[in-house]
Amino acid sequence: MIGLRRLTSVVRPVGSRIVKTGVCKPFYSLSRVNLYSTKTVQLTADTYKDKVSRSPDFKKLEVADIDYFKSVLNDSNSILTDEDDLSFYNEDWMRKYRGQSKLVLKPRNAEQVSQILKYCNEKKLAVVPQGGNTGLVGGSIPIFDEIIISVASINKIRHFDNVSGILKCDAGVILENADNYLGQQGYIFPLDLGAKGSCHVGGVVATNAGGLRLLRYGSLHGSVLGLEVVLPDGTIYNSMNSLRKDNTGFDLKQLFIGSEGSIGIITGVSILCPSRPNSFNVALLGVSSYETVQKVFVETRKELGEILSAFEFMDGKSQILTGRYLKLDHPIESAEFPFYILIETSGSNKEHDDEKLETFLGNQMENGLVEDGIIAQDEAQVKSLWSWRESLPEASNSAGGVYKYDVSLPLSDLYGLVDAAGEKLAEAGLVDMDDESKPVVGAVGYGHVGDGNLHLNVCVREYSKKVEEVLEPFVYEWIQQHKGSISAEHGLGFQKKNYIGYTKNENEIKLMKQLKAHYDPNGIMNPYKYI
Amino acid sequence: MIGLRRLTSVVRPVGSRIVKTGVCKPFYSLSRVNLYSTKTVQLTADTYKDKVSRSPDFKKLEVADIDYFKSVLNDSNSILTDEDDLSFYNEDWMRKYRGQSKLVLKPRNAEQVSQILKYCNEKKLAVVPQGGNTGLVGGSIPIFDEIIISVASINKIRHFDNVSGILKCDAGVILENADNYLGQQGYIFPLDLGAKGSCHVGGVVATNAGGLRLLRYGSLHGSVLGLEVVLPDGTIYNSMNSLRKDNTGFDLKQLFIGSEGSIGIITGVSILCPSRPNSFNVALLGVSSYETVQKVFVETRKELGEILSAFEFMDGKSQILTGRYLKLDHPIESAEFPFYILIETSGSNKEHDDEKLETFLGNQMENGLVEDGIIAQDEAQVKSLWSWRESLPEASNSAGGVYKYDVSLPLSDLYGLVDAAGEKLAEAGLVDMDDESKPVVGAVGYGHVGDGNLHLNVCVREYSKKVEEVLEPFVYEWIQQHKGSISAEHGLGFQKKNYIGYTKNENEIKLMKQLKAHYDPNGIMNPYKYI
Repeated sequence: MIGLRRLTSVVRPVGSRIVKTGVCKPFYSLSRVNLYSTKTVQLTADTYKDKVSRSPDFKKLEVADIDYFKSVLNDSNSILTDEDDLSFYNEDWMRKYRGQSKLVLKPRNAEQVSQILKYCNEKKLAVVPQGGNTGLVGGSIPIFDEIIISVASINKIRHFDNVSGILKCDAGVILENADNYLGQQGYIFPLDLGAKGSCHVGGVVATNAGGLRLLRYGSLHGSVLGLEVVLPDGTIYNSMNSLRKDNTGFDLKQLFIGSEGSIGIITGVSILCPSRPNSFNVALLGVSSYETVQKVFVETRKELGEILSAFEFMDGKSQILTGRYLKLDHPIESAEFPFYILIETSGSNKEHDDEKLETFLGNQMENGLVEDGIIAQDEAQVKSLWSWRESLPEASNSAGGVYKYDVSLPLSDLYGLVDAAGEKLAEAGLVDMDDESKPVVGAVGYGHVGDGNLHLNVCVREYSKKVEEVLEPFVYEWIQQHKGSISAEHGLGFQKKNYIGYTKNENEIKLMKQLKAHYDPNGIMNPYKYI
Repeated sequence: MIGLRRLTSVVRPVGSRIVKTGVCKPFYSLSRVNLYSTKTVQLTADTYKDKVSRSPDFKKLEVADIDYFKSVLNDSNSILTDEDDLSFYNEDWMRKYRGQSKLVLKPRNAEQVSQILKYCNEKKLAVVPQGGNTGLVGGSIPIFDEIIISVASINKIRHFDNVSGILKCDAGVILENADNYLGQQGYIFPLDLGAKGSCHVGGVVATNAGGLRLLRYGSLHGSVLGLEVVLPDGTIYNSMNSLRKDNTGFDLKQLFIGSEGSIGIITGVSILCPSRPNSFNVALLGVSSYETVQKVFVETRKELGEILSAFEFMDGKSQILTGRYLKLDHPIESAEFPFYILIETSGSNKEHDDEKLETFLGNQMENGLVEDGIIAQDEAQVKSLWSWRESLPEASNSAGGVYKYDVSLPLSDLYGLVDAAGEKLAEAGLVDMDDESKPVVGAVGYGHVGDGNLHLNVCVREYSKKVEEVLEPFVYEWIQQHKGSISAEHGLGFQKKNYIGYTKNENEIKLMKQLKAHYDPNGIMNPYKYI
């Protein structure tokens, strides 16, 4: 890591221009190659045969149904029935879930979706809406023979207003395409995530994705201005307006943000986009405790306020594992710290941003909170520092496997879960970083402090019933006791459908079930999942 | 206006520290003195007797009902039946609406609200939830004999986490008290408005208030993290968590943001608060056209991006009227400009903010977009510049009266409505700025460009049927044609209940009515209003 500048108690490095394109984070895309592996994925219906069975309420697909869909779509490319063609849509990219759909429909507009859904609703044919198929909880994969309705062919940019920054586009536009388009106009999509090359704008909204810009640009509930959604009965709900302020009745679109295809299919999105910052900085710091991480976070918000765009933390163990995986010395070589912080700033004036960051870091070293650290001096160094955060998922998996928990907790308790899981595993005598006879390498924690989002990775040498029994339901119960969420950003899908009670109370669940029944009385939308 | 510095083509004024407290904007609070006037307000039921009549479905209040409420509240101060006591709750502060309620209940917690609502729902007693009673559309005032449920006694700060910036408080906490409390911790409430000294946090959420910080901190749909709400059947929906990210099911709380008391009573709010900026700047600029206003807005977002906190525009006529009203020369004396722009920045570093603003203004003068302008040098000057924006509502009203339209439009059409209304009035021969024989002084426009929010004020010497007929439904139809909203921030309430069709389409209205019926099948919540 030659060339990175070590911080001294007063920091005055020379800043260099850093381009954001270089900082996009391929958390998931690396694993995407798995898709082309030949290993057959077990049918979800088999894996979970004791937990789920096909509902007899749903009609089975017949030739007459396919004939009807042909009359609607009027285009052979929009109807897939060939088994090979279907396999891409029947499996998730992690190759964890596999459905048995016999039919994929690829409508080209909301009107076609409406005709399809209306028919399915009347005939009680179950459906699964699908976007880019990059989900992590099996939400867009059929369990049995549900018809897959892919929005991949509904994929046009509809309009962009370069005064207000409001983008209107079809649901099937790939996130990266939307962001590149916006980049040409000097704007930025208010959300970024590793799967950006595959995931759809509509899918991002349907799952209320959080991603890497949430700290700065807030949640989709604030930035989405309007939606076009087809309801199960074929009604097209259209609120694709361009208004930031509109207080005329219930804000219905909010219901569909994060509804995971359970009450409608999003076909269009209107969203407010911020101006693209032209200056980026990244620093990596070593601190002595999680308490200090929190203190530095408070100081960061105060001093870097409007230019702060990421505040990620990683524990020491995670960095040791990452170092082994990358076969590299850690960029902060002076000592092994219990915690590391990665700070990114982005703003409109490079000189000002540099000065703010340097003054801030100087202050933090003088007051003793930050013990050592590094500021990236060019784009390569930015990438290099980010890689110590980005490589963490793969590093966690490198010993043989990983139990992953994507949770949200009040900040003060955020790291407590990692400690608690580590202690439980130690008590059971299951964990050792170097002893190959133990099933668990370690429980490591990292995440977005700014969003209260922790990734707990229990890195194992092999999957084992014993480890699972120590972890579950313990982890979920711990989250419940500390008023956290068992799913910060990945959603419920199929995987966490039955765990919602750990985060939501009885009344909330009752109201959600009522709402589901209200909009989808026949239950045809994405069955066996969500709520 | 001695002491304000005139901009030259390159601007380098010396910045001075400006404290935000001095900049709060008492748009409505001045008129609040009206409350103590002795003039009797006409009963809403009489004013609108051809439009609304009491529903026979609702039970009339009996002694037995009051006895029940006494048993719940167990405190004579919490039950008001005396006519004098009731008048404050029966009238809105503008003295436009007056109801005939015989009972005000002031519960102290959600549990008491639950017992009250459950009873009312069973007995079909209609109710009106009420917060600080600062609404502008009669939404919190009974029309007939609805029971008023005031949340004024549910008014405690519950918790503040000074690491995450998450505030949990009762619905009845006055906005200014919440903001002052946050100020002591170095934070700021993400919303500010003129009525802050009276309005409640809960009311702000129930009406989805926009206010003066929306451009910077976004809408409440993004910043509210959780709510405690009592539903008509007494169910307490509680999602008062402290999580920024939580993807476990429908985000139900969103439904209550902006629902104007139509499906539940908000009793608690959890909200994410940003760090309080410590540097503020204000500049007032003169430009030649509305097109230039838009161009300057684009440049502002680019150059001031992260520190921009207000971008207000005012037309030339509005400034002439304000000058007459304030009896002052305009701070930009060099010429009368067709449009003026007020820019506010707030950030964490005064020197950086000054430099950004000065460089930006220098650029705008060099490229010819901005023709003249002024930067405030101290707090008094900040107030003075803001007063040319803040005094506009009173100035508009000073000739005798004003027809006010709070609308939202796509930015490119924003000012078109003012032109269109002005032309219609001119065609009808009704308007002249100086000719006292004409009923209309002028149609003036101003507003938050950043939010697409226009205030069209038709300033009149007297209210007249003729003027009204020219303006309505013309204004609403124009908004509809240009895909705007007839209510940007004030809401529907009683005043605009019947106009929703100008902004929302048939399907949207149908879905809203279904939702209202779903949560409030007996229709007891805030009847005769909203949807």
